[in-house]
Amino acid sequence: MTSIQIVEVGPRDGLQNEPDVVGTADKLKMIGRMIDAGARRMEVASFVHPLRVPQMADAEAVIAGLPDRCDVSYIGLTLNKRGVLRALATREGGRRGVDEIGCVIVASDTFGQKNQGQSVAEAITESQGMIRFAKDNGLIAQVTISAAFGCPFEGDVPPQRIVDIAKAVLEAGPAEIALADTIGVGVPAQVTDLFGRLRAFVPDDVRLRAHFHNTRGTGIANAWAALQAGVTVLDSSLGGLGGCPFAPKATGNIATEELIYLAQQSQIEHGINLDAVIAANRWMASLLGRELPSLVARAAA
Amino acid sequence: MTSIQIVEVGPRDGLQNEPDVVGTADKLKMIGRMIDAGARRMEVASFVHPLRVPQMADAEAVIAGLPDRCDVSYIGLTLNKRGVLRALATREGGRRGVDEIGCVIVASDTFGQKNQGQSVAEAITESQGMIRFAKDNGLIAQVTISAAFGCPFEGDVPPQRIVDIAKAVLEAGPAEIALADTIGVGVPAQVTDLFGRLRAFVPDDVRLRAHFHNTRGTGIANAWAALQAGVTVLDSSLGGLGGCPFAPKATGNIATEELIYLAQQSQIEHGINLDAVIAANRWMASLLGRELPSLVARAAA
Repeated sequence: MTSIQIVEVGPRDGLQNEPDVVGTADKLKMIGRMIDAGARRMEVASFVHPLRVPQMADAEAVIAGLPDRCDVSYIGLTLNKRGVLRALATREGGRRGVDEIGCVIVASDTFGQKNQGQSVAEAITESQGMIRFAKDNGLIAQVTISAAFGCPFEGDVPPQRIVDIAKAVLEAGPAEIALADTIGVGVPAQVTDLFGRLRAFVPDDVRLRAHFHNTRGTGIANAWAALQAGVTVLDSSLGGLGGCPFAPKATGNIATEELIYLAQQSQIEHGINLDAVIAANRWMASLLGRELPSLVARAAA
Repeated sequence: MTSIQIVEVGPRDGLQNEPDVVGTADKLKMIGRMIDAGARRMEVASFVHPLRVPQMADAEAVIAGLPDRCDVSYIGLTLNKRGVLRALATREGGRRGVDEIGCVIVASDTFGQKNQGQSVAEAITESQGMIRFAKDNGLIAQVTISAAFGCPFEGDVPPQRIVDIAKAVLEAGPAEIALADTIGVGVPAQVTDLFGRLRAFVPDDVRLRAHFHNTRGTGIANAWAALQAGVTVLDSSLGGLGGCPFAPKATGNIATEELIYLAQQSQIEHGINLDAVIAANRWMASLLGRELPSLVARAAA
């Protein structure tokens, strides 16, 4: 492998878990800084109910302010058909809007009910419909199987369940399937196992993506295991911001800085400028009034 | 691989870098708690000049207070023949003393001069003599090649230099050769490469050990790569304490909690009780007045 794609999820998964709401103008500054640093694919908003996730209440305003660049793909997270309609609405009247929707199937009934009011079976059916509808309307549609490495309420998640979910959702033709360790309990052996199982039946033209949290210090180890398993698309967030308001004790995503460091020291191309990301980290830390988790940024201090 | 040995280096590499000196009684409490948790091999002191590393000035007192257990191996770090003599003196008069000496060869002339006043060539010669002398006097002798993954002053360290150092020191018959990423710059690809090179010529009866710091978030990824490369002995420190007073910005060792978590979630035996280590972490954090780096311990809060 000689190159990877880093998907910046800080503006969504990162800021979603901040206790304070970061304003629209600052979100756009963050997005602009990450584009300037080289990010070319980014989760910019979540189309969820503003009362459930107030940090994402300005989704439409953020998207209306995005740089009109054809070389950047903007992702909006959607949990149901209503979210897809909101995503499509951002493109009405010839506006830039989002390029992709990201669906989410939580691999546990208990967590799925808390996260989005859906059992596993309901989320599969809903995602299938969303993917088909989005594609029919000109959007790229991909899906994340979350809590794939463990559930905060049910504990272990059987690997076969992940396989079954992936097979079912594949019928709708997603562009990409991601496995997310939403609560940061996974270890590399699981990563190797799960992505190996998926690669065995997922067609080559459907990309595999990995999404890790560093809650127990295994995030970068898991990223490396995913790369070794042939995964070439990885999520990370500026500074290691992030978490999930509906998962107890979930902490930040793996830091974009750490993923860049891992890649460049391993002679893997990634297209992002580390110094520019560290500068963005300093700006964001000053905005939030606290140091961000990234250790690469701290070591560069 | 079904089992690993975790070497607790917190009492030496951990406490050595604390700005405050932890007292002898508390060091012995720490050592006792780690033995109770299951640790069976431990770096307990460093025989360096007390003016250079005041945190280790009580080496002899710590060793005199160690539990007299035949199932635990105590390691004293030694940088020269004088250190070996001090290690031997702890056993005089039939006392328990240390079981092993750990020699150090820094893989960079600049860092080696700052760390212990020795060039690479001088450290090789000194270590060969120390190993032979220690073995002749009934001590186990092993060696760590430090800054093996990069030097804070010289930058890259050529892999061939590590091979050459290992070959030279092997002539003296060390029980074990460790590679240390003293400043936490390494990535898994380097780990795979370096340990692969060593395994190709190091006899099977000479163990390989790995020592990582988590300065840039890659410590556990490196540990996993070492395990995959066939290394079965790894250093870690309680809570992720540690660093090096002579290496700028070096932060803690990988946390014992993280290494235990990685092993047990990967069905690898390790013999240490995680809950007991987390309890020791809480006690140490309260003693030092700050939270320790371990994320596994924080997630368990």
